[in-house]
Amino acid sequence: MKTGDIGEFEFIKRLTGDCVINTSGIVRSIGDDAAVYDPEPGILQVLTTDLLAEDVHFTRKSISPGNLGYKSLAVNLSDIAAMGAEPRHAFVSIAIPNDISLEYMDEVYTGMKELARIHDTNILGGDTTSSRSGLVINIAVTGSAPSNNLLYRNAAREGDLVFVTGSLGDSRAGLHLILNDLPYTGDNEELYMAHVRPRPHVDEGLFLGGFDGVHAGIDISDGLSSDLGHIADESNRGFIIYADRIPVSDNLSRFCDNYGFDPVKYALEGGEDYVLAITIDPAKAEAIIEEYNKRFEYPLVHIGEITADTLHQLKEPRGELSDLLPGGWDHFKS
Amino acid sequence: MKTGDIGEFEFIKRLTGDCVINTSGIVRSIGDDAAVYDPEPGILQVLTTDLLAEDVHFTRKSISPGNLGYKSLAVNLSDIAAMGAEPRHAFVSIAIPNDISLEYMDEVYTGMKELARIHDTNILGGDTTSSRSGLVINIAVTGSAPSNNLLYRNAAREGDLVFVTGSLGDSRAGLHLILNDLPYTGDNEELYMAHVRPRPHVDEGLFLGGFDGVHAGIDISDGLSSDLGHIADESNRGFIIYADRIPVSDNLSRFCDNYGFDPVKYALEGGEDYVLAITIDPAKAEAIIEEYNKRFEYPLVHIGEITADTLHQLKEPRGELSDLLPGGWDHFKS
Repeated sequence: MKTGDIGEFEFIKRLTGDCVINTSGIVRSIGDDAAVYDPEPGILQVLTTDLLAEDVHFTRKSISPGNLGYKSLAVNLSDIAAMGAEPRHAFVSIAIPNDISLEYMDEVYTGMKELARIHDTNILGGDTTSSRSGLVINIAVTGSAPSNNLLYRNAAREGDLVFVTGSLGDSRAGLHLILNDLPYTGDNEELYMAHVRPRPHVDEGLFLGGFDGVHAGIDISDGLSSDLGHIADESNRGFIIYADRIPVSDNLSRFCDNYGFDPVKYALEGGEDYVLAITIDPAKAEAIIEEYNKRFEYPLVHIGEITADTLHQLKEPRGELSDLLPGGWDHFKS
Repeated sequence: MKTGDIGEFEFIKRLTGDCVINTSGIVRSIGDDAAVYDPEPGILQVLTTDLLAEDVHFTRKSISPGNLGYKSLAVNLSDIAAMGAEPRHAFVSIAIPNDISLEYMDEVYTGMKELARIHDTNILGGDTTSSRSGLVINIAVTGSAPSNNLLYRNAAREGDLVFVTGSLGDSRAGLHLILNDLPYTGDNEELYMAHVRPRPHVDEGLFLGGFDGVHAGIDISDGLSSDLGHIADESNRGFIIYADRIPVSDNLSRFCDNYGFDPVKYALEGGEDYVLAITIDPAKAEAIIEEYNKRFEYPLVHIGEITADTLHQLKEPRGELSDLLPGGWDHFKS
């Protein structure tokens, strides 16, 4: 069945079941000119939006519709996580080509709702339209946080320790499999899944935002060197990271062994990992790490420091320092 | 110059000048993982989002980039207006094909900022990416209003009088000119402009939201019969409108004379007029009309009533009643 067979209003009705997960403060959801919700007093609102376009961010061949829906929301939740905020409401805009079936779109929404439920996030509205070219999904997500909890990019201080909340480079390896028609099975399956179904570190961001000693935060969407560069540049500081401390999964190590790649390059430049990079006051780091590691399975990994200069540097195991160029993902230069 | 020549971060810097118009309550704007703003206490937040896709909602040939930017924001502000709310912040996602120049995108943003300034609305964030197919613009806009001011679709009551805030059908006539390569000059120019540069009735919506007697509201985006149908259906009521009371511009009358069309059909089914349709308590209507007409140049026009049944009816001048099918714009059936 094609979307054209049922019309826009029927289509919206079909997709908008189970979209409101947490009714607190909601005055109107889908079905009016705009959604209406009551912000909590004393809590700041955040809002992020990300657009995924067919043949730029994904191909229909290489990602299932369920994972596409999941990922479209995940990249937005990851931005909310990077602010140290709690996601609240998502607004989904979709442009749908004529050759996409209703069943396909059902699966997109099913994947989206699955992740929304995990993070108690509502789908409160959006826009659906046809497309004469590719499938386009834009999601805007609001979040809220006490003002002290928010993790800004420009808040890193000289001497801060730099941590990441997960291993890096898997997603880029998954993309390599897709682009080169390599099998997604066995050792490669988790790399593929890291690319098509990334887990946003919402709980980690919320937890870290609660500590005074956690200063700056960003999610690794463009690549570690590029994204840490944003923190450094906007804080008027530099950074130094240690090549041998960058966490790399066993899967990525095997993948790089098999295909002759450098795992550190994948980790530094890969992008779309959606783990968080944060900077922590060195005097408070030990206590925060202890609490964090009690709560989460994957440890906070100390990979470097914020420096007084404005250099972006990588330190090799034998001590050589090299300048890190922001070699991450740039959506216009790919 | 192409967007690929400068890269995403430079591109964003280039476009994001002059985007914050009203700094009140803004903690962070463009440049972090999400924008941060402080909601007013006791005020509800609304959020709307609309996606415009090339060759579905516009062609590059038939609309200037400045008008495209203007219209992309206008359709969202119109939704905020239809809620009786005040627009606050816009978030702009754009997917840009390789054959679009930076100068083109500058003009898109110039048109957008021109309208943003008129309504004291900030552009606080968004997402830019490349597109392998058409140009896509998605805008999300937040607004705020005291809860009593909000105009919901389901709030119409039996006996309410139905009003519109402007003439109908011009935009559809403008689209006819575009689709049939007819000249946009002379008598036709205003029809064309009604389509490519619609004025959102933000001031009218805000003003009307302030009266207790104004019950339901919607903006005419799909067509009067379809949009009034939403109010009726969601209020479990019906409506009757009078064919000879539907306001039609002189330009549209001349256009219909010239080309042999029925102006009432254009007005009922046209869509994209972005005037407001509202329902008012009959006991309070006179006082509201008087205040409204003091403030605004174009009068509130009384076109019909909300009925106890659930019929959608049109009354012809000679008294015949006919059922109105929702013949407006459906984005999947076009």
